[in-house]
Amino acid sequence: MAAHLNRQVRLRARPSGIPQAEHFEIVTTPLPEPEAGQFVVRNRYLSVDPAMRGWVSAVANYSQPIGIGEVMRSRDVGEIIASRHPDYRVGEQVVGWLGWQEYALSDGTGIIRCVEEKDIPLSAALGVLGMNGVTAYFGLLEIGEPKPGETVVVSTAAGAVGSAVGQIAKLRGCRTVGIAGGREKVRLCREEFGYDAAIDYKAGDLGAALAQACPSGVDVYFDNTSGPISDAVLRRINKRARIVVCGTASLSSWEPWPSGPRVERHLLVKSARMEGFLVFDYESRTEEAVTQLAQWVRAGKLRYREDILEGIEAAPDAIAGLYRGENLGKRLIRLA
Amino acid sequence: MAAHLNRQVRLRARPSGIPQAEHFEIVTTPLPEPEAGQFVVRNRYLSVDPAMRGWVSAVANYSQPIGIGEVMRSRDVGEIIASRHPDYRVGEQVVGWLGWQEYALSDGTGIIRCVEEKDIPLSAALGVLGMNGVTAYFGLLEIGEPKPGETVVVSTAAGAVGSAVGQIAKLRGCRTVGIAGGREKVRLCREEFGYDAAIDYKAGDLGAALAQACPSGVDVYFDNTSGPISDAVLRRINKRARIVVCGTASLSSWEPWPSGPRVERHLLVKSARMEGFLVFDYESRTEEAVTQLAQWVRAGKLRYREDILEGIEAAPDAIAGLYRGENLGKRLIRLA
Repeated sequence: MAAHLNRQVRLRARPSGIPQAEHFEIVTTPLPEPEAGQFVVRNRYLSVDPAMRGWVSAVANYSQPIGIGEVMRSRDVGEIIASRHPDYRVGEQVVGWLGWQEYALSDGTGIIRCVEEKDIPLSAALGVLGMNGVTAYFGLLEIGEPKPGETVVVSTAAGAVGSAVGQIAKLRGCRTVGIAGGREKVRLCREEFGYDAAIDYKAGDLGAALAQACPSGVDVYFDNTSGPISDAVLRRINKRARIVVCGTASLSSWEPWPSGPRVERHLLVKSARMEGFLVFDYESRTEEAVTQLAQWVRAGKLRYREDILEGIEAAPDAIAGLYRGENLGKRLIRLA
Repeated sequence: MAAHLNRQVRLRARPSGIPQAEHFEIVTTPLPEPEAGQFVVRNRYLSVDPAMRGWVSAVANYSQPIGIGEVMRSRDVGEIIASRHPDYRVGEQVVGWLGWQEYALSDGTGIIRCVEEKDIPLSAALGVLGMNGVTAYFGLLEIGEPKPGETVVVSTAAGAVGSAVGQIAKLRGCRTVGIAGGREKVRLCREEFGYDAAIDYKAGDLGAALAQACPSGVDVYFDNTSGPISDAVLRRINKRARIVVCGTASLSSWEPWPSGPRVERHLLVKSARMEGFLVFDYESRTEEAVTQLAQWVRAGKLRYREDILEGIEAAPDAIAGLYRGENLGKRLIRLA
């Protein structure tokens, strides 16, 4: 493509359930020019997240649904290539809500931070040092409140969030049990992410496997799935257990609203707590988390995996691919 | 009956679901004689509570199930008529786990407190100053954390717990909305317990009625029912709502385990919290609650209703009657 053009991925149609490639279109537009108070970022990595399913849904959500014809919302990292904004200089690397496009025009709104950790690969700013790592950090520590010696169970345990949750829980002295789908992810849980036990939920009797992996019950459940995995974990919670509701990856749609075993009696007889976690509620504390996460990464105590797709052409099918379970690690799109 | 005999209500058979009269039997035994370190309480009021359903169930619970042939567990209030215990004197009135019987032998285990508030009717020690009032007090204030101006919704709003929750929330400056079954209970909610709005869930579209009664959404839901009432309330919760799971009165059985709309997405998109509350977790703080509750009762700020059955013969059918909805107010059995 010519340097004076920009390609954008826009929402073409509203999916019910998982967004597929056909719900997006790639549109070529002129390269934006900054006016006074604006700057242009050349995106280097675009993020692909399971939560994007919710952002394009018209069902009740924590944010405005993305409109038809709008550029797909995403957190991205890139370099400032032109600026008429006093606080942003050409050459700086920034993380923010730049959208699925090659070049983004910004007035600073939606910029989350400048990348300072130049000794860590830039892509990490979107994963282990980005939304995923920050989600794991605050979700586990602020909602889950793990104590040394407790058992922490994590669903989608090999994923970008789950793998960080498991490692942070381990750093806090907990017994960590990961639940993942398939042999390769279970192997990663054990060998790369240091889980004390890992369970393949596709392999058979999840209840029996949990009983074996959690001989002292479950104190913290970091839930990225909902569905039958959560139902099985809830049957094993301890007195005053904490359940962090972070995602619902196992449910393909909320239209119609899915049913499942009622949770009230579990919560009641165990004086247990189930609480929703949104990383956006902690945006003002991002730096605190990133500083700690970067220290752990540098010290080799926090490992991460990436699944990098090449070029913006890969974007439209990228969310559907997450839900097909085809990635190992944080999914990103690298732009040349 | 002769004064030297004791009548006890024992569990005869284990019910699945609501215990009925036929699950109990009344047995006459000798009047107990205290040995050294023991005393005898003549029960004046026996408590009848919805939670008793759980205590006789073999399903996972917060306490050991009552064994077949054992005296039915209950909180009761009575007078010490004989004592060989250094800390308990004849004539003292005590509240404790004395059981459904006319006379109880005790070594002090299970005694919760001595009744000091002689200016308030003795029966109140089992209701508004007993388990129900203490449940309302700690459940609402410690788990619900109501703030002035917030909307607090209560299910079984005219009941022994619910009516106290509504009034305490009002004392804290909240807008209070009660949900109850039938015109008479709704009238009580409005006229006796001071709810700002009261809804008859049997009268029609609960969702529409909630929308009208809660124009600013729901900040705290004190849940005594679970079931479709809770499902309707959850659809209206606000950001950072707190749901106090205190009872599951609308569900007649947990065998088989009931299903319902999944709660995860509500909790997630609202960063909301759902937490089980057991009054037994707060037993060491009983005096703190009773002192405050008694002050409110004396000042006319906390009203209560009682439904008093006469004689131990009424006990076997008394729990089933609660679930038939036949009582208005705290159900007690008065012994002559």
